[in-house]
Amino acid sequence: MCRWLAYSGSPVLIEELLYKPQHSLIVQSLHSTLGAEETNGDGFGIGWYGAQDTPAVFHSIEPAWNDRNLKELSRHITSGLVFAHIRASTGSPVQQTNCHPFRHGRWLWMHNGLIHDLLKVKRDLVLEIDPSLYPEIEGTTDSEIFFYLALTYGLENDPPTAVARAVGLIEAVGRKHGVEYPIQMTVATTDGDSVWGFRYSSEGKSRSLFYSTDVATLRAQHPDNPVLHLVSDETRLVVSEPLGDLAGAWNEVPEASYGVVQEGQDELHPFQPIPPNGAKT
Amino acid sequence: MCRWLAYSGSPVLIEELLYKPQHSLIVQSLHSTLGAEETNGDGFGIGWYGAQDTPAVFHSIEPAWNDRNLKELSRHITSGLVFAHIRASTGSPVQQTNCHPFRHGRWLWMHNGLIHDLLKVKRDLVLEIDPSLYPEIEGTTDSEIFFYLALTYGLENDPPTAVARAVGLIEAVGRKHGVEYPIQMTVATTDGDSVWGFRYSSEGKSRSLFYSTDVATLRAQHPDNPVLHLVSDETRLVVSEPLGDLAGAWNEVPEASYGVVQEGQDELHPFQPIPPNGAKT
Amino acid sequence: MCRWLAYSGSPVLIEELLYKPQHSLIVQSLHSTLGAEETNGDGFGIGWYGAQDTPAVFHSIEPAWNDRNLKELSRHITSGLVFAHIRASTGSPVQQTNCHPFRHGRWLWMHNGLIHDLLKVKRDLVLEIDPSLYPEIEGTTDSEIFFYLALTYGLENDPPTAVARAVGLIEAVGRKHGVEYPIQMTVATTDGDSVWGFRYSSEGKSRSLFYSTDVATLRAQHPDNPVLHLVSDETRLVVSEPLGDLAGAWNEVPEASYGVVQEGQDELHPFQPIPPNGAKT
Amino acid sequence: MCRWLAYSGSPVLIEELLYKPQHSLIVQSLHSTLGAEETNGDGFGIGWYGAQDTPAVFHSIEPAWNDRNLKELSRHITSGLVFAHIRASTGSPVQQTNCHPFRHGRWLWMHNGLIHDLLKVKRDLVLEIDPSLYPEIEGTTDSEIFFYLALTYGLENDPPTAVARAVGLIEAVGRKHGVEYPIQMTVATTDGDSVWGFRYSSEGKSRSLFYSTDVATLRAQHPDNPVLHLVSDETRLVVSEPLGDLAGAWNEVPEASYGVVQEGQDELHPFQPIPPNGAKT
Repeated sequence: MCRWLAYSGSPVLIEELLYKPQHSLIVQSLHSTLGAEETNGDGFGIGWYGAQDTPAVFHSIEPAWNDRNLKELSRHITSGLVFAHIRASTGSPVQQTNCHPFRHGRWLWMHNGLIHDLLKVKRDLVLEIDPSLYPEIEGTTDSEIFFYLALTYGLENDPPTAVARAVGLIEAVGRKHGVEYPIQMTVATTDGDSVWGFRYSSEGKSRSLFYSTDVATLRAQHPDNPVLHLVSDETRLVVSEPLGDLAGAWNEVPEASYGVVQEGQDELHPFQPIPPNGAKT
Repeated sequence: MCRWLAYSGSPVLIEELLYKPQHSLIVQSLHSTLGAEETNGDGFGIGWYGAQDTPAVFHSIEPAWNDRNLKELSRHITSGLVFAHIRASTGSPVQQTNCHPFRHGRWLWMHNGLIHDLLKVKRDLVLEIDPSLYPEIEGTTDSEIFFYLALTYGLENDPPTAVARAVGLIEAVGRKHGVEYPIQMTVATTDGDSVWGFRYSSEGKSRSLFYSTDVATLRAQHPDNPVLHLVSDETRLVVSEPLGDLAGAWNEVPEASYGVVQEGQDELHPFQPIPPNGAKT
Repeated sequence: MCRWLAYSGSPVLIEELLYKPQHSLIVQSLHSTLGAEETNGDGFGIGWYGAQDTPAVFHSIEPAWNDRNLKELSRHITSGLVFAHIRASTGSPVQQTNCHPFRHGRWLWMHNGLIHDLLKVKRDLVLEIDPSLYPEIEGTTDSEIFFYLALTYGLENDPPTAVARAVGLIEAVGRKHGVEYPIQMTVATTDGDSVWGFRYSSEGKSRSLFYSTDVATLRAQHPDNPVLHLVSDETRLVVSEPLGDLAGAWNEVPEASYGVVQEGQDELHPFQPIPPNGAKT
Repeated sequence: MCRWLAYSGSPVLIEELLYKPQHSLIVQSLHSTLGAEETNGDGFGIGWYGAQDTPAVFHSIEPAWNDRNLKELSRHITSGLVFAHIRASTGSPVQQTNCHPFRHGRWLWMHNGLIHDLLKVKRDLVLEIDPSLYPEIEGTTDSEIFFYLALTYGLENDPPTAVARAVGLIEAVGRKHGVEYPIQMTVATTDGDSVWGFRYSSEGKSRSLFYSTDVATLRAQHPDNPVLHLVSDETRLVVSEPLGDLAGAWNEVPEASYGVVQEGQDELHPFQPIPPNGAKT
């Protein structure tokens, strides 16, 4: 499986997100405490929004903990919306095209978890992808197929519905092939403005997912913490594992739900797959 | 495009094939003289038969000319059937899963050339691949799709017919999408016993391909050349470019033809694609 | 050998420097026209000044022409002082620690050329490096040793004298070991404000080096060229090979000379090595 | 630190050594149980004797657990003397030239542990290396410097004395620079015939090291174990961690001692560093 982090808020050096926290993503690459695997050393990736309409991505097949380029870039790149992902392969090769986050136009996507028995269901899933999107697929992961299914179902217009339909399809196809629990997932996706985070699994025991407490609330609770006075009220993190132990800072995303980090009030809703025959159109 | 070499004959150190010749494949990786590109630096691969039923493959994304592991392995591995390939990408990423030779069971496959406008035709071609073979596809090259089409059409039983049907399909699908010249190819494939080499292109101007002259004939012409007394009568090379300038040693494979290197008499035949509606069954 | 580019001037997307020009450094990585080798595929590096006191560096062992991370970063990073280098190894391994530019504090350094018979003279040269600097050496190239010799001789205070002393030492040590022409070089170094470019070789036949014409002059000559109206008067490029064929845009750095690109008037001076016994103190 | 394995005995597929055992080196790369670090993912290397006078080495900067080339090679290469090493960097970069085993002529060398405060003592140690050997150093690890010191002190003639002198020097230089415990080590070295294994540390708490019990003894204890009937009486393993839990199969190398695996009777002796002023000549 994997671990990931999504940041939205005041522009920040990527180093502050990846290296500085006590239980940072770099620490998690060697010693994840809540993940399915302790080691997440099968490549990594970061995505961020900056000088262009579309986000930048940087992918590497080396473990994050000793990657010098990641350290350099993190010290010099500032962004207000950052995705970062460390990978523990569930079978597909360690290559840059299999590193998250994946990108389509202005959108980024990253996934922790897996589509069970991928080789059994892969062809049926790929056939569902819109033929105009199909040639864009560059890697061989379940996560990228999942992304392109969501795009096929309208991710760019209505992310919660598109993800619900993609998951519904994955579950239907999996069950058709005798897979008991077709999907295990936490997912983050963004268009550069809002961030959507999903937590779900067919067996109802999903990988861990947390979001940071509203900054204004934290500031009231910890009036002496200087960092909390530096970041804007809108700043928010969604992470596989808490990055530290500041009391009250981290909240678990409930099983089978999704949240939206956006301008104004954030949201948290139940998540339910939409089976193929019940798909909204 | 790419350059490749297929060797069949007396067991030989791979170094003798890759490094020792005057115009070796390593030299061609920097300075190909007959290729579509002079530089073939987008990864490489070798395949050989040895201790197991199935052949070994070694793939690297680094240029062959400075790869230290290739040099080490070449000095220590001996085989009587070796495939070697240096890549110049026509668009797909430089990653190990895109390096030739590709393998399926006892079979190896390597390709120089391309399927034109791959992104237009890729989905239609992939749909033709046998669903039981589909999950084995690991990379994203035209060459690997071509291999799996040939396997779908019976490569393991009748290579010339299977390749002819695969090419026929590629041409039909390409033309359906408005591609004038759908395929450009030289291909080598082997089951560990015989080697088949194909030269063809839709436009009738195929990439260069040569085979070595019968050893007995060469020995008679060059009675003082010691190497010719060391190798067996059955030894044969099929190569994108001649490896040296020994008079009489190299023969061009004619346009639109294929040859078989095998125990007993080798063969050379015309090659003609079999269109989908005319496929033998 | 190698090819390189140094840019100083109006902040610019790195993409504009590396990919957009007609005969860009990326083109030179496959098809250098003036270099000692046509292919420069043994890794590359970029360095730039931005968010921190010290510059950032990004190094890769893959050829520049197909490196996806380089393309991504180049599209998203803007800087007013950029070094870029593509490598053709003269023997030392292809690894990130052998990629230019090298960094020490605020300084960057890159080199095209070589110290002849490095293995003969390496130990004597390394012994001259200041013991406090010695542990910083991370790679195994002649170029990095040259950099640390220049630092030992005061690069940070007086670059022309420090480089002249380093070259004087290299020549003296080389000749002691019977090397006829100990050094071949073009070098660029910067502290983030000024850029120094050197062209010299023991045999008096140095690798090519060019600098761009003063922007005000070019603007007068080409009043309709829009690019020339976008960049500041101070903008200047120093390059191994001209990036295009705009008439009057490129000037050869004379044999055995060095230039300074700086605020105010740029400078061009003769360069002469300072032998060890004649070293200024 | 690292983990390693040295095998000497009946020719065996490398796969049998690296992948088949219950607690294999591949398993240890993710989950070492006795090592200083649980994860050993900073590259790996193997060395073996075969077709040439000098051994072959294969080095990779990727973690061993997912390296496809290692898997391929292990399935196809057979040898009677194999070294394998998985690395957890103690600071020096992850690059092929820093991967063990290191080679000089017919000799291989691998090391688990470190020279403490390397940057303080590195220059003094390197100065002790024989000038004729100095140019061969390719990487930047403490382990390679240690190897070249041992070569300087006559490793090829008398390994125990050479290693004792190298350790004596490292301790003397370290203490001169105020390092309390200058060295921590287990080392294996071989000339292709015998294997020497050392266990020592300045603080007297050395990394774990084990050797396998004499095959004849094991066969008597486990008459029904088929593997024990396949291998020769001379077959022996020296490993950082036991590869399985066969009762009686593994014996700890005592603190501060060294062993020799050789034709005839193996040996086990105390190990004591020889300080520079007491060095034998």
